[in-house]
This record gives sequence, structure tokens and C-alpha cells, in this order.
Amino acid sequence: MLVMLAPATTVIAADLPKRKPGMAEILAASKPSDWRAPDPENTLYIDLPTGRVVIELAPEFAPRHVANVKTLAREHYYDGLAVVRAQDNYVVQLADPEAEKPELARKIRNGKKTLPPEFDRPLDLKLPFTRLPDGDVYAPEVGFSSGFPVARDPKSGKMWLVHCYGMLGAGRDNPVDSGGGAELYTIIGHAPRQLDRNVTLLGRVIKGMELLSTLPRGTGALGFYEKPEQRLPIKAIRIAADVPANERTALEIMRTDAPIFRDLIEARRNRPEEWYHFQAGKIEICNVPIPVRAAVLK
Amino acid sequence: MLVMLAPATTVIAADLPKRKPGMAEILAASKPSDWRAPDPENTLYIDLPTGRVVIELAPEFAPRHVANVKTLAREHYYDGLAVVRAQDNYVVQLADPEAEKPELARKIRNGKKTLPPEFDRPLDLKLPFTRLPDGDVYAPEVGFSSGFPVARDPKSGKMWLVHCYGMLGAGRDNPVDSGGGAELYTIIGHAPRQLDRNVTLLGRVIKGMELLSTLPRGTGALGFYEKPEQRLPIKAIRIAADVPANERTALEIMRTDAPIFRDLIEARRNRPEEWYHFQAGKIEICNVPIPVRAAVLK
Repeated sequence: MLVMLAPATTVIAADLPKRKPGMAEILAASKPSDWRAPDPENTLYIDLPTGRVVIELAPEFAPRHVANVKTLAREHYYDGLAVVRAQDNYVVQLADPEAEKPELARKIRNGKKTLPPEFDRPLDLKLPFTRLPDGDVYAPEVGFSSGFPVARDPKSGKMWLVHCYGMLGAGRDNPVDSGGGAELYTIIGHAPRQLDRNVTLLGRVIKGMELLSTLPRGTGALGFYEKPEQRLPIKAIRIAADVPANERTALEIMRTDAPIFRDLIEARRNRPEEWYHFQAGKIEICNVPIPVRAAVLK
Repeated sequence: MLVMLAPATTVIAADLPKRKPGMAEILAASKPSDWRAPDPENTLYIDLPTGRVVIELAPEFAPRHVANVKTLAREHYYDGLAVVRAQDNYVVQLADPEAEKPELARKIRNGKKTLPPEFDRPLDLKLPFTRLPDGDVYAPEVGFSSGFPVARDPKSGKMWLVHCYGMLGAGRDNPVDSGGGAELYTIIGHAPRQLDRNVTLLGRVIKGMELLSTLPRGTGALGFYEKPEQRLPIKAIRIAADVPANERTALEIMRTDAPIFRDLIEARRNRPEEWYHFQAGKIEICNVPIPVRAAVLK
């Protein structure tokens, strides 16, 4: 769940209800050290005619794909391409609409068209991991690492990013090495976990999801748009570090390795808000919000 | 996942790939007896300016709410109300925009404004139940009954509908008996399972989800629209049985108690399609598609 918060949330102690704190109170009581600013070198802006989508990249999980997408962005490969697909309860995908026609397809200069897959990576127990206590249908262990939903399998010694709402992946054809980041997709529906370890995930939308999730669904097979005019053009994809400071979108993400994030998970496993009659006592990974807020001015 | 299929799917045996059948082949080989037409007396049409949303009601799980929604529809309570809320990755909600103002709120004549909750119902082992083999984070048992995703708890002797994408519920305020169907919501994002047993679910969208899922998100608290002109008006909500036969939307739903549905679940647990490099071997309840197709002409 994407949770965007106003920067100035004021809660007066006397107004606090006599119950365990819920997410609103936890956020209001947060300290500056509970938050981090995403690295501008690993932050992607997708500028659409309707606004900006902000993505945090995951170089710890897909280093080659992240590097390639940055190279492609810096050579302006994406600028003028389009959202070509929107399939309800599944994905929105952006690509070169002429990708299948060699004579018309946009040329790649410095980046790579395809890469070996990064479906998983070696398990590294030194990476922060806030593990969820309630299990998972698909993976032996799930939790959060550096702001991303992650699954781990100690037996195979692997870890991988999980297909939750808002995750960004590199589309591919049938060969596993046919992706690379020239085509990108975002999950706009229920987590399609069958895609885990089948596609390279490389980031997460941290702002602007609604610009993608509300796009008209394509009526062609797999949600592809049937007419060119139905496609939404990509004005540009840029790395935040390349954008003048006054044009950046200043955001902060809750640290998923901070104690406050464990408090938040607990407040979502057992919702203390008065509305809740029944407390689930459990939580599934893609139901855990990773709070994002407008950066607090220093 | 909503899966809408064209009525005429022709697969020639010689074209079939040399692998286990995937969903496409299973559907193409289906027999008329694998499908059922939803009961027009328990089918709801939400007619929007943009088209029709079709809902199958679940009288086995929420008999009083279903009866009340039908009464409200038949007294034209909903006609002219509006979608008042669209919260990204969560819900779209329709209601009387003036519900909070007693002097302006639409009057209910025959229906009830509120009802006792129907959050769960007694476990009935005689009801069909196609159980999933892979467990669930939230409930002891999950599966499908009469076309709906269902959880069961033999210990407490209860069963209940599950908040998957497209499920329809009766919004309520803090008191558990403050709902009744005058306000209705649909899930448009990742399954918010914490709502299970906290709100009465009473049906499932079987066609037209994209008319709701693509609505602009409200910018007020909880996704409520801040300006009246942002709301999408409800032209009418009608029971299919009350609509002339030639104006009905003729659909068929796969029988979830038929052997073909077990085959489909297996084909989704272990995707045989060539694209899949890794087979999950498992499936989570809200990732199981319940196929719907245009009715085959007899």
C-alpha cells in the first residue's frame, strides 16, 4: 500500500486516544532519524504528460539492470516512448511501440538491449532484514530490506524482490535473458507472486502510482492498446541526480530497519483503530505499507 | 484476477503445444456443463455513464445484506447517487454524497439503512468448497464456494468471504451494525485482508471492473473526492431480473465446484506456459482467476 503523508502532521498529546498507537500516531511521533532520503543517483523520474512518477531503484538486488536503466535514461532512450499496455489488476508497461520492427525501433547507443536475468541474488545475512512473523504462501521467509519487500530461502541460499503493488520490473520475452530494462512494467493490482523469480524486479514506485493505476485499460490481448493514440507518451525518464535541485521531488522513506517500522508492522497486524472489530493478528507482505512523505524542510 | 474471454475460442489440436495445458487450453477445451449463468435475481447492474458493472451477489454468505441491497435497488435508492471515493490500491465507494446531512440525505422507503453485520456465517460442510492446498497467511483454510473466495475456520465453526480484488462490500462507520448496503465499496488493489470479518462482503464484480479501477483517485482524506463535480454519478443500480432480457449482459461463470476448476488451479500453481522459467508450485487465494465469459448462444 502506498501511503503519502503531508509533511506537517501535528498531533497534540491530549487528543491521543486511549489505545495502542495506530499508524497515524506512530508516524506523528516519528523522529527525523526514522526517515531517509532516497539516493538521487538511484531515483528515477518518469515524467508523463499527467505528472511525475518517482521510483526508487534497487541496486542491491538488480545491479546490472539498474545500471542499464540509468544508462538508457541518460542517453534519452525512453524519451518519447509510451505506455503501451495497461492490463487490469496486473501491469502497466512502457516500451518502444515500434520495438518489434527492426527498421523503426529506436536504437540503443550506450545501454544494452538485453541482459542476463537478475531474478534472485545470493542470500546475504549482512543485509538488513526485518522479517515478518506470519509466513507467506510463496516463500520460506519474507520481510523488508532497504525499503523493498524481499523473500529469502536459506535452503537455496537465495533472496529476491517480491512482486507487490508498485514494484517495477524489466519486461522480457520467452528467453530469460531477453529483458534488460528497455521495457519496464509496474504492478497495478493484486500481487502477482507467480512472477517472482521469473522477471527481474529493479525498483519500487514511491510516488505517483495513481498516474499509472488509473490509465485506461488496453482492449487488445494482454491489455495492449490497439490504437497508437491510446498510448500515453513518456515525456522523459531521468535520474534525479541529473535534475536541477529545485526541480526534484523531495521525498523521505521510512527506514525499514528502524524500530519504528517494527512498531508499524505490529500496528498493522493488530489494528488498534476504533473501526476495527476484529484484529487479524497477522499480515501478508504486500499489505505492509512503507510510508513515504514529502521531505521535511531543514 | 478478472479474466474476460471471448465466446468463440477455437484451438486446433495440431496447434497445441507439447506441454501440460495452461489456462488458455483448459478454457478452450471446456464443456458447456463447466459453466453456469449467474441467477438474474442475484445479479446487480451498476449502470455508470461510462458503462455497466455486473456483480454477482452472495446470498449464501450475506442473505440480509443481499436482500436489502435488492430492496434498495428496487426502490431506486441508488439512482442518482455517486462514486464518492477512490483510494489508490484500496477501494472505490459509492454512496449518497449528502448522507451526513439528515435534511439533505436521500430517504429510504422500503429498505433498511443499517443491518446487523454478516461478517461471517456458520461453517456448513454441505456447501461446495474447492480448497486450496497451499495455506494462507490469514485463515486456517481457504478455497472457493459457488464462485466466491472463501475462508473457513473449523475451530470456531465459521466461514466468510475474502477481500480479493473485485469483491463488493457494505461500507460502515465504527459501530459494527452501521452498515447495511446503502454504501457499497469494491476492492481495486491488493487484497486488504485485514478487512475480512470487519465488513460484510456480499458479492463480486464479474464484469466492468476497469470502469471502477481506472477512476481518478480522490485527493481528500481516505480518497474521498473533494469537489462534487469529481464524483461519478450512478445512473441506476438494477437487478438483472428486472431488466428486459434484451438489455441484460449475458455472462457465464466457471463452476468452482467442477473438476475443470481444479485443473485450472493446478495450471496456475505450476504455470506450464513457455514464458515461465520458474514454477511457483503454490497459489494464494486472490491470485486464482475465476473465469467469466460472454454467454455462448444456444
